[in-house]
Amino acid sequence: MAVKLQTKYLEPFVREHELFGMQHEVEAAHKLLEEKNGLGNDYLGWLYLPRDYDKEEFARIQAAAKQIQKDSDVLVVIGIGGSYLGARAAIELLTSPMYNLLPKQTPNIYFAGNSISPTALQEILQLCEGKDVSLNVISKSGTTTEPALAFRIFREFMQKKYGEDAKKRIYVTTDKARGTLKKFSDEQGYQTFVIPDDVGGRYSVLTAVGLLPIAVAGVDIEQIMQGAQNAMENLSVCDLGINDCYRYAALRNILGRKGKSIELLVSYEPAFTLMNEWYKQLFGESEGKDHKGIFPASVVFSTDLHSMGQFIQDGSRILFETVVDIKRPKRDLTVKEDPSNVDGLNFLTGMQMSYINQKAMQGTILAHTEGGTPNLVLEIEEMNPFAFGYLVYFFEKACAISGYLSGINPFDQPGVEGYKTNMFALLGKPGYEDKQQQLLEKLK
Amino acid sequence: MAVKLQTKYLEPFVREHELFGMQHEVEAAHKLLEEKNGLGNDYLGWLYLPRDYDKEEFARIQAAAKQIQKDSDVLVVIGIGGSYLGARAAIELLTSPMYNLLPKQTPNIYFAGNSISPTALQEILQLCEGKDVSLNVISKSGTTTEPALAFRIFREFMQKKYGEDAKKRIYVTTDKARGTLKKFSDEQGYQTFVIPDDVGGRYSVLTAVGLLPIAVAGVDIEQIMQGAQNAMENLSVCDLGINDCYRYAALRNILGRKGKSIELLVSYEPAFTLMNEWYKQLFGESEGKDHKGIFPASVVFSTDLHSMGQFIQDGSRILFETVVDIKRPKRDLTVKEDPSNVDGLNFLTGMQMSYINQKAMQGTILAHTEGGTPNLVLEIEEMNPFAFGYLVYFFEKACAISGYLSGINPFDQPGVEGYKTNMFALLGKPGYEDKQQQLLEKLK
Repeated sequence: MAVKLQTKYLEPFVREHELFGMQHEVEAAHKLLEEKNGLGNDYLGWLYLPRDYDKEEFARIQAAAKQIQKDSDVLVVIGIGGSYLGARAAIELLTSPMYNLLPKQTPNIYFAGNSISPTALQEILQLCEGKDVSLNVISKSGTTTEPALAFRIFREFMQKKYGEDAKKRIYVTTDKARGTLKKFSDEQGYQTFVIPDDVGGRYSVLTAVGLLPIAVAGVDIEQIMQGAQNAMENLSVCDLGINDCYRYAALRNILGRKGKSIELLVSYEPAFTLMNEWYKQLFGESEGKDHKGIFPASVVFSTDLHSMGQFIQDGSRILFETVVDIKRPKRDLTVKEDPSNVDGLNFLTGMQMSYINQKAMQGTILAHTEGGTPNLVLEIEEMNPFAFGYLVYFFEKACAISGYLSGINPFDQPGVEGYKTNMFALLGKPGYEDKQQQLLEKLK
Repeated sequence: MAVKLQTKYLEPFVREHELFGMQHEVEAAHKLLEEKNGLGNDYLGWLYLPRDYDKEEFARIQAAAKQIQKDSDVLVVIGIGGSYLGARAAIELLTSPMYNLLPKQTPNIYFAGNSISPTALQEILQLCEGKDVSLNVISKSGTTTEPALAFRIFREFMQKKYGEDAKKRIYVTTDKARGTLKKFSDEQGYQTFVIPDDVGGRYSVLTAVGLLPIAVAGVDIEQIMQGAQNAMENLSVCDLGINDCYRYAALRNILGRKGKSIELLVSYEPAFTLMNEWYKQLFGESEGKDHKGIFPASVVFSTDLHSMGQFIQDGSRILFETVVDIKRPKRDLTVKEDPSNVDGLNFLTGMQMSYINQKAMQGTILAHTEGGTPNLVLEIEEMNPFAFGYLVYFFEKACAISGYLSGINPFDQPGVEGYKTNMFALLGKPGYEDKQQQLLEKLK
């Protein structure tokens, strides 16, 4: 199994019987998923996606990625939320957070349309100057403000640069049939890929949404799907004794019920930084509703031991940690002897940095546990596309089970509409006149 | 005033008399700072630093920055925690988070020694291949593991590349007199800058610690100091009616006492991302102790409205937001009409993106407030070096006052030692044999 849950550090916080006290609830949650009769059951496409995904489209994704690698210096990926985080997280984790700076054979990849900052958009435009560019626009409806604004600007950029040929460089990932963007793309002759109806944004990284940009970065997406499929098979048995994913879901609920209102996802690799953001969307958007939910936060150690470490060790006792322990690094380094020993670290001579990083992790887990912060550990031998696919599925299923355990709909996000409605009203969108008056009153 | 606190959205959550009920506590906290007799009073050097800083050293910092700009393609900054976050936050906020990718006249700047990841370190080494490099090593003692390991490796790199001349490219920011690194630097002939004894790491961005790397990026550090000095003067009067910094400190404590256990720092500019991390260290390390403290977290909108937005709108009602409202962007863009209007956004035609971003902010504040999440707003006309200096001092002083209001020592960080001791023991450092045995027992 590519991801193993280690619970030995949890002993002082959760007793053995507590976990098995959850078995009946977990069984009920498992049944809701399997029988598709729980809240949000229209959005269960991710559950068997690693087995049932569209193989013909998958081949088209691979072909498109090859084409982009061949004819482009830059791929601009336009999307927000679930149409942004998964791909970026995968690319940073599986290649490098410095992917765009490092020498390589594949195009630079910039993510646009995930904010309304004109500065950020102008900078990406500047980075495209004089380069051969392809676009991947990812939007279910085509009307989400942030990506739509960016697409307007980049479409103009592409048309100016390539004229009629621009259409060969624009790849659109959108609804299969409905939505204005699908219709428009067909008219324009853009190649399109599908965001399945039954897969929500935050569950979509293993669809074309994530896979096309990830493949352009040179990552083996077949291995990702195999990892996910392996997880799907391994994590299908409803037994807390052997299903680590269900055990994780149950334990985080137990901790939440004991007043631990924040979960900190912890990694010891800077490359995991965007993966933390992906996890925060997955759990925050799934569970943060009906005035409930564990607040998802994250740190990268040992960096953040020198910022949030103090709080975790001895601040408000309202959090627990889930540590992602990646045992083998992509690249290693051996500490050499220094005759001056100015830093007093010659006792580390001959050790690999990865070994030191491991000891920092073990030492930290013991220190934080002693300080009263429960620690769960997800062990991963090596981070590669297979393990990434496994981990994604592991978290997705854990989130679904965990959401059902806390009695909410893990698949909707009604709260995201509030700001949109207000924004449209304040911007004077036709049809929002009454709302606009109300809001202007409040802003006075 | 470069930073103004807007509290009108707070009305449903905090009544007017509550704020003035805090006046006596705030006065007591103010006195502790001014009379230097509170907890941690050895670390108040930051309080009058914008007036009293060493002008001779400041000129040396500017000269060193010019030299590095002239003779280097790359500056590698080695430091962790307070010796890392401030400089990086300033550079990303005042130039761009894509500083290293964008065309410019100043050197690329890479931050090393802020983790134990060998992969991250190898990648920075790779980026230095064939480039002219300078080093800025920032460490009070010189023995902190992360930067010390990186310095070992980069010292070797520099010596191989430059031989005897390496010393002219190594700049060390460290203790004034004590510490092995100061002695070693003098022996080797490195130019040194001072980390003052009475300024803690998280309060050090306005010393050489932050200023040298920031100046290398081409930012006007005189303007930064002027902004900080302006803040120092403006924020010295102990009156909640006019001192926005004290009002902010009091209000966050009021909200904390009402059960809001998480403060989310919010910005609408991706360039603010690392500034969020700086804020998290400042408040997390200052206040997260004695099992107390508001947990500092952060988001960048509208990006994270599509991830954490749901939770903030309708999840557990345990958080409040502090929105940094930067009114004018560095660069703007106007929305053009699109004949196809495929996205339905033609009602935005002719608007500037910065205006749309502002409306998104206002709409979000109203929506979140309505949902039960209190919102404070820090208004800033434009983000420039002056405003940055002002904002840094604003937060520093707010953190000190807030810490005294909650009865803790805002200037120590005893909890950071726990992981270090355990790590050393597990790595077999001489003198830690007993501890090692205990820990190995626990790890079994």
